[in-house]
Amino acid sequence: MTDQSHLTAEHEALRQSVARFIAREIAPHYSQWERDGAMPRELWRKMGDAGFLGCCLPEAWGGSGAGIHHALVIIEEFARAFIALPGFYTHAEIIAPYIVHYGTEEQKQRWLPGCASGDVVLSIAMTEPGAGSDLKGTRTIARPDGDDFLISGQKTFITNGLHADLIIVLAGIEGDPPGKKTLFLVEADRTGFSRGRVLEKLGQKAQDTAELFFDNVRVPASNILGVRGEGLHYLMAQLGRERLMVGMTAVAGAEAAFRETLAYTNQRQAFGQSISQFQHLRFKLAEMKTEVTVARAFLEQCVSRFLDGALPPEHAAMCKYWLTDVEAKVLDQCVQMHGGYGFMREYPVARAYADSRGQRIYAGTNEVMKEIIARTL
Amino acid sequence: MTDQSHLTAEHEALRQSVARFIAREIAPHYSQWERDGAMPRELWRKMGDAGFLGCCLPEAWGGSGAGIHHALVIIEEFARAFIALPGFYTHAEIIAPYIVHYGTEEQKQRWLPGCASGDVVLSIAMTEPGAGSDLKGTRTIARPDGDDFLISGQKTFITNGLHADLIIVLAGIEGDPPGKKTLFLVEADRTGFSRGRVLEKLGQKAQDTAELFFDNVRVPASNILGVRGEGLHYLMAQLGRERLMVGMTAVAGAEAAFRETLAYTNQRQAFGQSISQFQHLRFKLAEMKTEVTVARAFLEQCVSRFLDGALPPEHAAMCKYWLTDVEAKVLDQCVQMHGGYGFMREYPVARAYADSRGQRIYAGTNEVMKEIIARTL
Amino acid sequence: MTDQSHLTAEHEALRQSVARFIAREIAPHYSQWERDGAMPRELWRKMGDAGFLGCCLPEAWGGSGAGIHHALVIIEEFARAFIALPGFYTHAEIIAPYIVHYGTEEQKQRWLPGCASGDVVLSIAMTEPGAGSDLKGTRTIARPDGDDFLISGQKTFITNGLHADLIIVLAGIEGDPPGKKTLFLVEADRTGFSRGRVLEKLGQKAQDTAELFFDNVRVPASNILGVRGEGLHYLMAQLGRERLMVGMTAVAGAEAAFRETLAYTNQRQAFGQSISQFQHLRFKLAEMKTEVTVARAFLEQCVSRFLDGALPPEHAAMCKYWLTDVEAKVLDQCVQMHGGYGFMREYPVARAYADSRGQRIYAGTNEVMKEIIARTL
Amino acid sequence: MTDQSHLTAEHEALRQSVARFIAREIAPHYSQWERDGAMPRELWRKMGDAGFLGCCLPEAWGGSGAGIHHALVIIEEFARAFIALPGFYTHAEIIAPYIVHYGTEEQKQRWLPGCASGDVVLSIAMTEPGAGSDLKGTRTIARPDGDDFLISGQKTFITNGLHADLIIVLAGIEGDPPGKKTLFLVEADRTGFSRGRVLEKLGQKAQDTAELFFDNVRVPASNILGVRGEGLHYLMAQLGRERLMVGMTAVAGAEAAFRETLAYTNQRQAFGQSISQFQHLRFKLAEMKTEVTVARAFLEQCVSRFLDGALPPEHAAMCKYWLTDVEAKVLDQCVQMHGGYGFMREYPVARAYADSRGQRIYAGTNEVMKEIIARTL
Repeated sequence: MTDQSHLTAEHEALRQSVARFIAREIAPHYSQWERDGAMPRELWRKMGDAGFLGCCLPEAWGGSGAGIHHALVIIEEFARAFIALPGFYTHAEIIAPYIVHYGTEEQKQRWLPGCASGDVVLSIAMTEPGAGSDLKGTRTIARPDGDDFLISGQKTFITNGLHADLIIVLAGIEGDPPGKKTLFLVEADRTGFSRGRVLEKLGQKAQDTAELFFDNVRVPASNILGVRGEGLHYLMAQLGRERLMVGMTAVAGAEAAFRETLAYTNQRQAFGQSISQFQHLRFKLAEMKTEVTVARAFLEQCVSRFLDGALPPEHAAMCKYWLTDVEAKVLDQCVQMHGGYGFMREYPVARAYADSRGQRIYAGTNEVMKEIIARTL
Repeated sequence: MTDQSHLTAEHEALRQSVARFIAREIAPHYSQWERDGAMPRELWRKMGDAGFLGCCLPEAWGGSGAGIHHALVIIEEFARAFIALPGFYTHAEIIAPYIVHYGTEEQKQRWLPGCASGDVVLSIAMTEPGAGSDLKGTRTIARPDGDDFLISGQKTFITNGLHADLIIVLAGIEGDPPGKKTLFLVEADRTGFSRGRVLEKLGQKAQDTAELFFDNVRVPASNILGVRGEGLHYLMAQLGRERLMVGMTAVAGAEAAFRETLAYTNQRQAFGQSISQFQHLRFKLAEMKTEVTVARAFLEQCVSRFLDGALPPEHAAMCKYWLTDVEAKVLDQCVQMHGGYGFMREYPVARAYADSRGQRIYAGTNEVMKEIIARTL
Repeated sequence: MTDQSHLTAEHEALRQSVARFIAREIAPHYSQWERDGAMPRELWRKMGDAGFLGCCLPEAWGGSGAGIHHALVIIEEFARAFIALPGFYTHAEIIAPYIVHYGTEEQKQRWLPGCASGDVVLSIAMTEPGAGSDLKGTRTIARPDGDDFLISGQKTFITNGLHADLIIVLAGIEGDPPGKKTLFLVEADRTGFSRGRVLEKLGQKAQDTAELFFDNVRVPASNILGVRGEGLHYLMAQLGRERLMVGMTAVAGAEAAFRETLAYTNQRQAFGQSISQFQHLRFKLAEMKTEVTVARAFLEQCVSRFLDGALPPEHAAMCKYWLTDVEAKVLDQCVQMHGGYGFMREYPVARAYADSRGQRIYAGTNEVMKEIIARTL
Repeated sequence: MTDQSHLTAEHEALRQSVARFIAREIAPHYSQWERDGAMPRELWRKMGDAGFLGCCLPEAWGGSGAGIHHALVIIEEFARAFIALPGFYTHAEIIAPYIVHYGTEEQKQRWLPGCASGDVVLSIAMTEPGAGSDLKGTRTIARPDGDDFLISGQKTFITNGLHADLIIVLAGIEGDPPGKKTLFLVEADRTGFSRGRVLEKLGQKAQDTAELFFDNVRVPASNILGVRGEGLHYLMAQLGRERLMVGMTAVAGAEAAFRETLAYTNQRQAFGQSISQFQHLRFKLAEMKTEVTVARAFLEQCVSRFLDGALPPEHAAMCKYWLTDVEAKVLDQCVQMHGGYGFMREYPVARAYADSRGQRIYAGTNEVMKEIIARTL
């Protein structure tokens, strides 16, 4: 269903490799992990060994340097298998780039190879219990203490929160202007750092999302990522990438659910015929197919502009909001077309429906996206 | 938010009684039951003791004879507490009436007092794995054997499937015309009857929904409910009641979620003010409030016509489809307005979102409702 | 399609009388009036003679005192005939009540009999070119001059602007606080009053809508309607009635278009069958039928509360916004179902589509309605 | 608002030339033509002289051979000026290509230069009063008579019907199988041909759309276009082009209306500020901007595939249905944002709203498009 003319044989090989990996390492255990509320830590290393964590990292640091089209192939294969583990692409495609872009040579040397190998799991800790999309309202504070800083605060909804070895923490430095925030690299083994319980989500149940607590966690000044006070600018600069990635997962998810549902309706009988013969259902399928096709066209344009360095923030915002809206509409229809089975978790679209509900919320709610777009008008 | 002018002080007393019951007997254990996939059997007797299972049953058989407005109060209080246990009203308001309407005096004497007291839990077994809304396609077969029948077949998506003591089974009698089906009362302790696993649903996780298997289950002819071959007519006659009840739960659910969300948005701060101050959100709240108000007006008209014996099937179908559509729209918005918390199961609207996804599917999918309406045009 | 159990034989007689009147006096000339941009002045007297302008006026002043259900019958018959002349109900049901409620005995004696007979045509002049829904922003000014006032300003979108004999003008009195406005009765033959051109609208083309100019129009203090400075309060008090009336026209319009379209689809053939056999179209018809039914239920509740004096402003706002939204959705579908004919003005639904586009705008835009509702949450 | 990186300076020069032409030759007279129900015949020659009718024609036949991007520029400039004269692009981009593709050398020589110069106006006559999208149901008949054919039948909704000099007529030849239709070139000066009245449409009022009558119109066999019996295949082959063109006009129309509305909301004041400051309105603008951006991305993909000869029919169908749906949503919002002015024909968006209502109907209704897409699933 996808125009994959931009994908070379290399991509196709990757696709098969990812599919085999999922079939072997993930699918057989996935339901158990959903019940556990987390995948096991060793999956990270297997993903690293397979080369799936380093698409966006240069070879010098253990990556493949293959770029965003490889990341898209991986995302699509996870979607096709209805495996909701967004922590992987969040780590590899969204958080690691912060270190690539703003890290010192030393920070890169220290952390990036582990990111690619799966030895180091990354989280980024922006959101706080009292402040969602309102990043200027961040209350986590870093108090200077000699050459060090003592970080105190609470973060929530943190992807990879259970396994994270290194957390990029958004905090305000005591004495800095309230609108200035700084990014700190915080190792998970530092005293005063603790993890809350894994949050029980509507979906993405094998993905660990947690609260993190910082109680006077001491970090040296050399743990600042980039320039002091520039945290919000860095986030603004990188959020376009994050939103594009979410757009990718949205299109991949919608396509996978549509494919699954089309197959289901062709096979399912009622009133003496395949239900896909009913005109109402056929028209709905045609509408879904159209929306998915349009979504893919828009995504491709966004990806192409991103690679040209010409994806303006408002287009990234459109990409995030509009594509996740399409995904939601498609998923809801897919559930409905499955009838009673659509409400049963053993059917992939039922799980995908729940898994995807967060898409319109995280990475900036779709309402915040509209605010961003409106400002540019 | 509701016009309750039709509710007397008696209703208000009932409301408080239900609320206290939920607070004492259900709420403290509900999360555990969700993990268990079922409420405990003894809850049925507590509900019976409290008088909550007999609203639609005459006093002669242990009911209160209080009628549908009492049932609505109970449904509303469950919705207000975000407790999704539809098995109770299905038992009391949807299945028991089959026995009331079509049962022999002996059947009524035998079963109805237990229905009211909670000693007998009812299921109705229509749906089969291969046939959802297509009841004429029922394959469960009853083979005559002397004065008995041997019932064989498989049913799925059966509410109260785990606890049911008496199951009303839709089956075709061997030799009858294919379009003729018969309702049988099948006691759960008969040889050849077995329960499959409790199905893992997207929501309503404390409600046991199961597959049921019938392997040459012998029942006497006196277990036929009503007249042989009239099963589909009975279903048609009673489905209006079922659809009205689903409409009630939809309005109650939408109102509860709206109330909860309104309170949340008033209290939640972002960008320096209560988020309910943002015009976009205020307009959405106004739209939700309007839809809920219109839904309630339509429901009241339907209830009033039902009580007058003048609710035509197509109006029952409108009631079911349109009100569950409103519920779905409202719930989706409620989740969205909760931001990240809307994706966390500890927040009631998150659970309600998942709990309510089946509403557009069961009791006849909303598409089947449209078919029913279209036929009358 | 409508539950008309509340309508007595008297209503039915009225209905037939209106239908005959339309067939005889309006329908044969209507297309010409559309081209002219106005109905003829004498139609007002014919309407008055027939007793159609006095439903809401007591008999003492020439009305029938029959009330709002009579008005609804008249509105429905106009809708059924696809005659868009909202000036009549605006005059009789919206503007005349201002004089009834706030007029002095002398004002009532002088004007109301003419309102009922059609000898006096009323307009209400609120909106100004620079201020639509923002009535506090009214710039028309009344300068005290002895016992008189000199009114200057410009009003636009004035229904009945061409024929109006008496205009209720919203103006601020020089020296009064900016938020205080006053209603003046202005006779059309006063010096300094002039009418602009009849505005060319998208629809309702036989209805004269015009700009009005006031250039030092001298009126005596006795022309003040009600209490000086209370104009905005009077508007607030009466707008509920106006919004209810618009809701009525919306439901009547949607029902009429649905009825017409259902008949069309039953008769229209394509691909060898009546197009109403196609499932997609049947489902759309079922959806429309449902929305119209729900709309009618909500309208009836609003009417009933209005008659009880218990229709709160936010419910009037819901009535206006939600019902005109339904009308718009239904009309758009009706056009679509007519195929190419839906774009041709000789087909009633095509005209009704254009006629109805203003419904979501006037009497307070639907956005303003949401603001009103939101404020009460 | 548009990514026009594919447009060279040559396109920009064309754009300015079209804009000047419209300002000089069309805009001053357009309202009068709307009242007349048709533009004047001489406008065709002026368009031809300016080189605007030959983009898709080779230079050998008087065209510019510039291709579809030039056509898009012209369409966009007409949209920007809110001039609804679809007959030009229908003639030049949709009908002339039939002669280019299926005409004999002689037919091309005879007709194409006139098409480019505006001396010959083209119509294509498919639709009949009793059969819209159902082309196999065509009843117009061509009876063989010696080497000639006598064509009899009636066509309706014919663009350029008043001015057409040459009409491509879809007819069945007597004796051919019912599903076989043939295209005939019929000169407008042949005996037995007559034009009905110009149809009064909801919009596009300066565009002549008419009924055509054929009463034993004699044409020689050499007037057959292409191969006898292949008419429906030719239509199928060319309809993709037509649907792409409609998609172009839809995007151009939506962009123009959005641009106009954005400017309006920035300038319009209410409640003491520019109305574009209101969050609700800003979000709506952001949504419209997003939809228009996505629509443009999809259109560009379709154009690019069309130029590669790789636009499958179902994608052309998506292009037509989805883009006209976007246009309709955007136009409706634009009207709403104009408040009372949105209902006044002097405001461009009001006219554009009415002009565009046919877009979802002609060139195959959007429902037929869904049928086409569904067949490929």
